[in-house]
Amino acid sequence: MIEPKVLKGFRDFLPPQESSRRRLVEKIEKSFRLFGFVPIDTPALEYADILLGKGGGETEKQVYRFSDHGGRDVALRFDLTVPFARFVAEHRSEISFPFKRYHIAKVWRGENTQRGRYREFTQCDFDIVGSDCAAADFEILLMMRNTLKAIGAGELSIRLSHRGLFNRFLEKIGVRDKSVEILRRVDKLAKIGEDQTAAQIAQAAGSESARSIMEFLGSAKPGQTFEETLAALSGFAGKGPDTDRLADIRTFMNDTGTAETFILDPAITRGLDYYTGIVYETFLKELPGIGSVCSGGRYDNLTGLYSKELLPGVGSSIGLDRLQAALEELGTASAGGTWTRAAIVCQSAEESGRLQALAEIFRAENIPCDVFLEPKKLSQQFVLAEKKGIAWAVIPGNGGITVRNIATRENTEGLSAAQAAALLKAAQ
Amino acid sequence: MIEPKVLKGFRDFLPPQESSRRRLVEKIEKSFRLFGFVPIDTPALEYADILLGKGGGETEKQVYRFSDHGGRDVALRFDLTVPFARFVAEHRSEISFPFKRYHIAKVWRGENTQRGRYREFTQCDFDIVGSDCAAADFEILLMMRNTLKAIGAGELSIRLSHRGLFNRFLEKIGVRDKSVEILRRVDKLAKIGEDQTAAQIAQAAGSESARSIMEFLGSAKPGQTFEETLAALSGFAGKGPDTDRLADIRTFMNDTGTAETFILDPAITRGLDYYTGIVYETFLKELPGIGSVCSGGRYDNLTGLYSKELLPGVGSSIGLDRLQAALEELGTASAGGTWTRAAIVCQSAEESGRLQALAEIFRAENIPCDVFLEPKKLSQQFVLAEKKGIAWAVIPGNGGITVRNIATRENTEGLSAAQAAALLKAAQ
Repeated sequence: MIEPKVLKGFRDFLPPQESSRRRLVEKIEKSFRLFGFVPIDTPALEYADILLGKGGGETEKQVYRFSDHGGRDVALRFDLTVPFARFVAEHRSEISFPFKRYHIAKVWRGENTQRGRYREFTQCDFDIVGSDCAAADFEILLMMRNTLKAIGAGELSIRLSHRGLFNRFLEKIGVRDKSVEILRRVDKLAKIGEDQTAAQIAQAAGSESARSIMEFLGSAKPGQTFEETLAALSGFAGKGPDTDRLADIRTFMNDTGTAETFILDPAITRGLDYYTGIVYETFLKELPGIGSVCSGGRYDNLTGLYSKELLPGVGSSIGLDRLQAALEELGTASAGGTWTRAAIVCQSAEESGRLQALAEIFRAENIPCDVFLEPKKLSQQFVLAEKKGIAWAVIPGNGGITVRNIATRENTEGLSAAQAAALLKAAQ
Repeated sequence: MIEPKVLKGFRDFLPPQESSRRRLVEKIEKSFRLFGFVPIDTPALEYADILLGKGGGETEKQVYRFSDHGGRDVALRFDLTVPFARFVAEHRSEISFPFKRYHIAKVWRGENTQRGRYREFTQCDFDIVGSDCAAADFEILLMMRNTLKAIGAGELSIRLSHRGLFNRFLEKIGVRDKSVEILRRVDKLAKIGEDQTAAQIAQAAGSESARSIMEFLGSAKPGQTFEETLAALSGFAGKGPDTDRLADIRTFMNDTGTAETFILDPAITRGLDYYTGIVYETFLKELPGIGSVCSGGRYDNLTGLYSKELLPGVGSSIGLDRLQAALEELGTASAGGTWTRAAIVCQSAEESGRLQALAEIFRAENIPCDVFLEPKKLSQQFVLAEKKGIAWAVIPGNGGITVRNIATRENTEGLSAAQAAALLKAAQ
């Protein structure tokens, strides 16, 4: 006998969780499609050198890597960005640019599970590649906003900044060469606090630079408008293509009446070197503690590992698992409810064919129904329907069909099949 | 520079293929949900001993198996049945029986790719466990029929038989102990022909038995009804619980007016020892050559590897990749068309915010639209829209909005946003 258990750091999705998850994905996909974004898919397994590139760092330690039957060095994807870069480089001639794609799929990382993380999780990535303009930057921001609103994430704020602006500022104070170390520390600001961040930056770039940087980072004062913060930042770094880009994006926010969602915040930098333009993170007003649920930015060289041609892009990623947990906490998790509207109870084994014939009438009206298979006491069947989260029971009889509201125990009797269907359709 | 290429035996899905695939999955899921079936999900990786059980055979050679970071012996799932058995055994107390679930997910097998097979493919499994009755058997058969009709697979026939009946017949002619070898040979009948099958069975069970078996297998004469074939088979093997079961299922087919889809055919046996009751395969009338697109059967012990308690079930599986290929061949592949209804063209960089504001009006009406991001000649933008498979272009102007049919080049001018939305909604 083998003990039936899921692998450490992995988990099953039972019907209520998986139903809620699929509802969430369906809403996200619907929102992506409303923006004309198209889906792609790539294999879970890739050549390890394609996924790991120059390699090194945390990622390499976490990736599931092994030799396949043909002795190939392969690995499970650990994100959707690297496979996307490989995909674009490989299919360049088959794609029309600007290319707007989404990809919702599982990724795997052998992370330390003590932090409550899972080793298999779902990412929802959306990117526009082949275009470097304010319109593309803004479209991704608008999609983030609309998508999170569509799934009932409540009030949200998207905080954004621009890597170019930050780098010009570092240049001006003479520490441009330290930008990677500085960015990594700034990215931890919300976690470790101002004092410690300042101390760490001072170690890397001197205490005078640290003071200037902290001042720059603090220029998004509470209650200040986007425009006022932009003016303050231009004061620190001077005007440049980055401040122009931010101003253009701001105009588009105003044009669409979405300005209130967006906050200019120089403390948003994202840790990765990868980004070169705007960067952003999304916070839920009702759950600030969970951190960003949707983040990303602009990059100027997606396919650098595989091709010499520069391909710029802008994109964002939703961590579905964290988002689902957040929605469950908010109680707006599109309910874990079943799709099944009605249970058709079974009173004798011989009538099963006729019960299916009745169900077919309901199904033709798009009413999902579960035909119970074995004759049992009606009360037991009502309990089973309730356990399955089904709101209505349908009881055929000689005097017509009875439809029962499982929660209120109210019966409507003597219905024809068409009347029963109409009742079930009208009821939520 | 690393060459960007997908791993041997794997493939990418470009937007047209992936869109068509997702439409197909959405229709399949809708059909499953109309039967009250609920979704689950399990991890791609499992302990190798859970997936391989007693091991041995072809499967073990094909499975992707390796050591993870913690030195665990793990493997990628190669089907959805074994993880489902583990899932049911592990979550037994959290599930209500009979449990009707579906699972649509990728599986991996390091198969020989020369036969045109891929090493990553998608399966759609649906099962009812915890019930052994004709109503459950029939519900799976009806779901197969409805689902394949819903996706436009055209006319189909589902051929079914019963393992118990076959085994009783083997008992009667005294070769019950050879049943596993005989079944494996019968399962290849359609591929290798009657003569060779007869010869192989003769080798295993003697030539007299082979003659009787071939006669039994041939009792589904063309033009004969289900009832007539059942009578002929009862003549060979005598009556038993299996013939009663088949008769009950037939009554349910008649009750639902679906009898014409189903053919009783003793030559259907399925190769696996696993099945103990009815077994079935599905053939498309317009594409008989591709073989069965949906197959399965009844088993009496799903969780035998993990638990002593017997758990019977009945289920079926659709190989999505083969089905998609078949639908493409039939030309009914739910079209690889994009969801995007309209391209909003861009005539100056500054108007991008206003274009998004217009798009928001369309999106609120559930009209997916792609806002073009960079000002280019209108003719170039029409070409891009066409490449993307978008049927309509929207051109805002001072005299109102123009909506252009990309294919016919017909323009409708001077529209308000609401009028444009109405036109796009009305048009397919």
